[in-house]
Amino acid sequence: MFHHSGKLQYPVKVDKPNPEFAMLLQQAIGGIEGEIRVAMQYFFQAMGARGDDRIRDMLMSTATEELSHIEMLGHAVALNLEGAPVSYQEATAQDPVMNAILGGANPRHLLSSGLSAMPVNANGVPFDMSHVYATGNIAADMLANVTAEAGGRVLASRLYNWTDDHGMKDFLSFLIARDTYHQQQWLAVIEELGGFEKQLPIPNATPEDNEAMQHSYYYLNTLLDKEAPKGRWSEGPSLDGRSQYSVRNQPAPEGQEPSLGGAKEKSGAQKEQIDPKK
Amino acid sequence: MFHHSGKLQYPVKVDKPNPEFAMLLQQAIGGIEGEIRVAMQYFFQAMGARGDDRIRDMLMSTATEELSHIEMLGHAVALNLEGAPVSYQEATAQDPVMNAILGGANPRHLLSSGLSAMPVNANGVPFDMSHVYATGNIAADMLANVTAEAGGRVLASRLYNWTDDHGMKDFLSFLIARDTYHQQQWLAVIEELGGFEKQLPIPNATPEDNEAMQHSYYYLNTLLDKEAPKGRWSEGPSLDGRSQYSVRNQPAPEGQEPSLGGAKEKSGAQKEQIDPKK
Amino acid sequence: MFHHSGKLQYPVKVDKPNPEFAMLLQQAIGGIEGEIRVAMQYFFQAMGARGDDRIRDMLMSTATEELSHIEMLGHAVALNLEGAPVSYQEATAQDPVMNAILGGANPRHLLSSGLSAMPVNANGVPFDMSHVYATGNIAADMLANVTAEAGGRVLASRLYNWTDDHGMKDFLSFLIARDTYHQQQWLAVIEELGGFEKQLPIPNATPEDNEAMQHSYYYLNTLLDKEAPKGRWSEGPSLDGRSQYSVRNQPAPEGQEPSLGGAKEKSGAQKEQIDPKK
Amino acid sequence: MFHHSGKLQYPVKVDKPNPEFAMLLQQAIGGIEGEIRVAMQYFFQAMGARGDDRIRDMLMSTATEELSHIEMLGHAVALNLEGAPVSYQEATAQDPVMNAILGGANPRHLLSSGLSAMPVNANGVPFDMSHVYATGNIAADMLANVTAEAGGRVLASRLYNWTDDHGMKDFLSFLIARDTYHQQQWLAVIEELGGFEKQLPIPNATPEDNEAMQHSYYYLNTLLDKEAPKGRWSEGPSLDGRSQYSVRNQPAPEGQEPSLGGAKEKSGAQKEQIDPKK
Amino acid sequence: MFHHSGKLQYPVKVDKPNPEFAMLLQQAIGGIEGEIRVAMQYFFQAMGARGDDRIRDMLMSTATEELSHIEMLGHAVALNLEGAPVSYQEATAQDPVMNAILGGANPRHLLSSGLSAMPVNANGVPFDMSHVYATGNIAADMLANVTAEAGGRVLASRLYNWTDDHGMKDFLSFLIARDTYHQQQWLAVIEELGGFEKQLPIPNATPEDNEAMQHSYYYLNTLLDKEAPKGRWSEGPSLDGRSQYSVRNQPAPEGQEPSLGGAKEKSGAQKEQIDPKK
Amino acid sequence: MFHHSGKLQYPVKVDKPNPEFAMLLQQAIGGIEGEIRVAMQYFFQAMGARGDDRIRDMLMSTATEELSHIEMLGHAVALNLEGAPVSYQEATAQDPVMNAILGGANPRHLLSSGLSAMPVNANGVPFDMSHVYATGNIAADMLANVTAEAGGRVLASRLYNWTDDHGMKDFLSFLIARDTYHQQQWLAVIEELGGFEKQLPIPNATPEDNEAMQHSYYYLNTLLDKEAPKGRWSEGPSLDGRSQYSVRNQPAPEGQEPSLGGAKEKSGAQKEQIDPKK
Repeated sequence: MFHHSGKLQYPVKVDKPNPEFAMLLQQAIGGIEGEIRVAMQYFFQAMGARGDDRIRDMLMSTATEELSHIEMLGHAVALNLEGAPVSYQEATAQDPVMNAILGGANPRHLLSSGLSAMPVNANGVPFDMSHVYATGNIAADMLANVTAEAGGRVLASRLYNWTDDHGMKDFLSFLIARDTYHQQQWLAVIEELGGFEKQLPIPNATPEDNEAMQHSYYYLNTLLDKEAPKGRWSEGPSLDGRSQYSVRNQPAPEGQEPSLGGAKEKSGAQKEQIDPKK
Repeated sequence: MFHHSGKLQYPVKVDKPNPEFAMLLQQAIGGIEGEIRVAMQYFFQAMGARGDDRIRDMLMSTATEELSHIEMLGHAVALNLEGAPVSYQEATAQDPVMNAILGGANPRHLLSSGLSAMPVNANGVPFDMSHVYATGNIAADMLANVTAEAGGRVLASRLYNWTDDHGMKDFLSFLIARDTYHQQQWLAVIEELGGFEKQLPIPNATPEDNEAMQHSYYYLNTLLDKEAPKGRWSEGPSLDGRSQYSVRNQPAPEGQEPSLGGAKEKSGAQKEQIDPKK
Repeated sequence: MFHHSGKLQYPVKVDKPNPEFAMLLQQAIGGIEGEIRVAMQYFFQAMGARGDDRIRDMLMSTATEELSHIEMLGHAVALNLEGAPVSYQEATAQDPVMNAILGGANPRHLLSSGLSAMPVNANGVPFDMSHVYATGNIAADMLANVTAEAGGRVLASRLYNWTDDHGMKDFLSFLIARDTYHQQQWLAVIEELGGFEKQLPIPNATPEDNEAMQHSYYYLNTLLDKEAPKGRWSEGPSLDGRSQYSVRNQPAPEGQEPSLGGAKEKSGAQKEQIDPKK
Repeated sequence: MFHHSGKLQYPVKVDKPNPEFAMLLQQAIGGIEGEIRVAMQYFFQAMGARGDDRIRDMLMSTATEELSHIEMLGHAVALNLEGAPVSYQEATAQDPVMNAILGGANPRHLLSSGLSAMPVNANGVPFDMSHVYATGNIAADMLANVTAEAGGRVLASRLYNWTDDHGMKDFLSFLIARDTYHQQQWLAVIEELGGFEKQLPIPNATPEDNEAMQHSYYYLNTLLDKEAPKGRWSEGPSLDGRSQYSVRNQPAPEGQEPSLGGAKEKSGAQKEQIDPKK
Repeated sequence: MFHHSGKLQYPVKVDKPNPEFAMLLQQAIGGIEGEIRVAMQYFFQAMGARGDDRIRDMLMSTATEELSHIEMLGHAVALNLEGAPVSYQEATAQDPVMNAILGGANPRHLLSSGLSAMPVNANGVPFDMSHVYATGNIAADMLANVTAEAGGRVLASRLYNWTDDHGMKDFLSFLIARDTYHQQQWLAVIEELGGFEKQLPIPNATPEDNEAMQHSYYYLNTLLDKEAPKGRWSEGPSLDGRSQYSVRNQPAPEGQEPSLGGAKEKSGAQKEQIDPKK
Repeated sequence: MFHHSGKLQYPVKVDKPNPEFAMLLQQAIGGIEGEIRVAMQYFFQAMGARGDDRIRDMLMSTATEELSHIEMLGHAVALNLEGAPVSYQEATAQDPVMNAILGGANPRHLLSSGLSAMPVNANGVPFDMSHVYATGNIAADMLANVTAEAGGRVLASRLYNWTDDHGMKDFLSFLIARDTYHQQQWLAVIEELGGFEKQLPIPNATPEDNEAMQHSYYYLNTLLDKEAPKGRWSEGPSLDGRSQYSVRNQPAPEGQEPSLGGAKEKSGAQKEQIDPKK
């Protein structure tokens, strides 16, 4: 069950409100790199977590922290919109060039939300929950989580670089720090489970005879005019310790030509397809 | 530039067409774990790849292979739909119970595609390109790719488990094998770049003074009634070698109470919000 | 800031797992009538609440409760999926007719989530955040909330009617009860603000001279062959006390004919549109 | 059956075309507060209206009016785009700073629609029909309609505030007026059905023994560090006359800990989940 | 301005209600081949029609007819849902096998709409307005319209084939007929404008020196192992009378290798990309 | 099976990078008029092509070409973003007015993609695969393809008009040329199949007695106050040679009034609907 405290997890200050930065911050709320995504992803992974119950607790605990991050970002957006113009006259008065064209802001911060945060990204596109990755496979889920936190820290760093507001920089340095930890937190679960050597290939419970293993360890170079790039992926022992890497260059197709013949009666095709001349 | 051969990468046979399995296979085409996603993800990562050009080649080469996987799956769907009923009479004749209710098939295989594959998932929801993760950060992108391939192999294993068709099992064992390799291929790039110790935290180019490092290495336990779970994530050296892990239990909020005061004139609020009594 | 307890808000039991009911329950998680929607709606309204701070507290407090409802529903879905078949053989063994066609279940519970809840509705369509209604106008927001809770209680009642599982019926009776209260909670805010008479029309801060009030109180009957239906809406004092209702039957258009003339050069139109003969 | 007259419902004039305002007006066409939404919502409610046939007529009649509103807004957008630049040279000539950056306009008005309206919102996001709320429950539907009209009038007021074009202000004052009436029209239906006291809780046909009524009338305060806010919702008779309101502070969870145990064989989980050590 | 008559355009009868067919009919309402799409497409094309005003009238007139088709289909769905089971007991009683698994019906007809039509397709996916094609170019728009009507008639024919209900067959034969005409109606506009010879290439107003005409008339065969298929497209005069068709086989790339060099400082990339070793 | 060459199909040069033009180019990648759409549309049509195998080859061959167009456009976007500012200081330094407000650029090119292309349109909305039209009917598919290419050439012409960059103009003139051919390529298939006279109405395999042919050849004028526009569509022989066109003015409805009576018990309706007074 969830509970709430009235204060924010970390202080959020804005020195000089900036409606354009409000729009950029939205990416950290409703973007695929954002906090709604990780909150919901950890939440749904927790609800389906089978196996070691410590993982479920960890998922739910961190989901709860991410909810507090949405809350801080939402407040940051509202603070950046304080005093934004709501009429053409006011806009033109403030700055004849920039504000008259809405200053690069999200127009729906004016029209739809009444100067506050929305669950949308920096293009104004609403977050959709298909981005909540929860497979029921713990290693796949942990990787999805590291990926999400990597994207999150890339984004927070870009926002930090863009703004010159001291309050915002301080707040973003906190988010950067927490993303640092969360990246490692999920990788540490894989480490605890024996590391990639034991967890690969995912799922590691698929029996080997379900797999055409002769196709499992070569790099396929489909480029017609270039050699395969050499690297850790093209020779040496495989990361799961089961085999050796190799390269297959400019492969010829091994399958058949995929012809389907004539169309079925009453299937909605043209006559010529049902009874092809050729 | 892309080119094409007339044959499939690997043989695709169906022993006994099954419209329900056609619907399940759609998840491997248009699902978030599917082949359109990885083809487009590697393609867009390649088009923005900066730094080592070998990675761009590798991304484009594997994107090209994934296009061939879509092609095989599309053919597998069409073969599973061969002979599917297109009228109620025919349906009832074939099997009075199952087919009369469309046999669990996707109704749009009948109504929209004329018995062939669609770029949708097993629920009939079209794939949308927001799932193409390409950040311009090579480590974040590699993780996104391992994640996608982990999801893909989980899915292929589940499809393998579900079907009892020998042709389909053979074809899926090939996909399982290629997913095995692709998982390792992307992790091998990280390995080549010095492994996680050197690549973490992502982005590793963010200066340390942009980060509130006092918040970078503790596990935050937001659960009120449970101890923090102990594990690799809660003590010992951090995976990036910069610090030690610790635990912070049941933290008190450090921030302010996020009050916004009255609403602005002409902002579309109710009178009572613009001039609050209290 | 958010916190969490390890136990559920209310007990969730399933007497006999039913994968089809798992699919139906998804509507209460990821449907527009569902709990993700209200949790996020109250959350975002709270983050933009201006005026009386008691409302912000109430919004955040109830948002927190709704998160606990998602959690219970997610557990209910997982319990209904316990033991669901994951292979064709197993499916056929359990029940030759029904399970062989997935028993009406969501195929992605099998393929994507590993037998647990997803943030999707009963059709498998992911929830998207455009359904989070938060206008910054308190009366509009309260109405949106009553609407959401009305939809929620309609849905919970339909689920209650459908199932014959005692555990599920007990759990749903709790959700029905809370939806009862929440409907009234938001209407009570309007009551406290003076009721509809004082809050209408929304927004009540729009000056009367921004409104063509001669068009504000008539029912417009656009039906050519039927009289306007008589009722509270067609005569008597208006609900805001500003005027009297009346009826305008089969109105003639008052505006101009909307002709746009020729297309602009270089605008991408056909020649014939740029220089129309006629 | 629908019919059409060649003229607009009300005159639409633009004194000075403004491509940015064209973009803002799109919110009133394809936004969730817009006219496509109400037109389609009333239309689909009408097609499913059961019970009193006057309501079906009213829904269809007002749906028809809303179609005429889309038509006027569409014309307003086209008029605001008359003369918008279609080449960089032209853009730079008109105004070296603003137009060279498209003047805050929707780029797709230039690229996709050839200087005319689109069924998208002010961010360019297409309207999707999931926002058509039609439950088959008349009270729930009426609330959804008041909500939609409240959002619509908030939006029209914000657009009125933003523009300084006399033609547009006149047109918007008409929309504001009609939204005034429509808000009351739908509330008047509830009034005629006996008011909220008789219609609550929605659905009022759910038998009381399907409801855990001991949970139906308390305000649940999930905030750990704040008292429950006092108000109409926390004491006194309930709005449906069935009970008294009360408050439950900082509640302890009543349910179980939601543990799921090990994962099923062949369900796609990792080995460690199927046979957990712990 | 729009108006409405109380009766349907054509009689809609259902001999034996069938919830599964209700689900299939949804494709004709909210599918991309459906009536919402054409109604809105013609409506938005009309609002942006420049040039010959007869076309605008024709577009608006047919848009109006399509609205009446949505109305009929909506009624057909409701009639097919009359008497559908709303509880498990009732479902099991009616037919122990089929109804207990919802009979292949859309579960949201039960849960969300109260046994009536929704603006969704046969998979339950809501229609989204990105499918409203209106370019401002009359020839492109007419083609989009023929395409939509072709898809519509294919769908209506498939529905006709599927059902064995006489009422539904009669109703669908009317839709098939109107789609016949509408296909030709839009092609007739192109005919009147001089036919494809004069209208191609679209847009015909693009000056020839904006076009690399040496690339305008060859068929490009990208297949490595197959000859270009011969046909009307590979030799003889072009359909626009400007040139002759030819074939270019297995072309070599003419462009450069698309390398981007190192990543920019502060752009969020990894260190290794900003300063690549190689 | 697919293959790839390392070079681009045609040279792509940018004389002066322009982040705003990068945003506009996105429409040609991820817009409905864009290259992802045609690549995927021809690909999926090919995978379901039944009848004449030459068509399948042609579809796959051109799908392959379109993939190369995405590649070129993706490179064009990256080149236009070279040197775009990533910090406020840098932005302000470059151009105090324009860049400080992101210069009209897509903010996600900065925040999400690290200065490279994304699979989104010019509003930043991700492409979704519902726009892949593949019906299984060859004539309907060919029309969908001409439509897509017509939209594509309209778009490329608009982009050509907008930019003043010589490199970009040269590249766009190549795309314009290929769209010229592709429009005709698909129409030539219809020509080869006997032209519209033989292919109409689509599907031409629907038996005439499935069609209420008395409704197949009249123009229906639903406009109350205007005569039907005269033209090729209103008189003379029909384009399929089966009949003569005529006009039906201001038609009266022929169907019944669509009343549904009372709501079902337990269907979630209000009491008043279940047992209507009237």
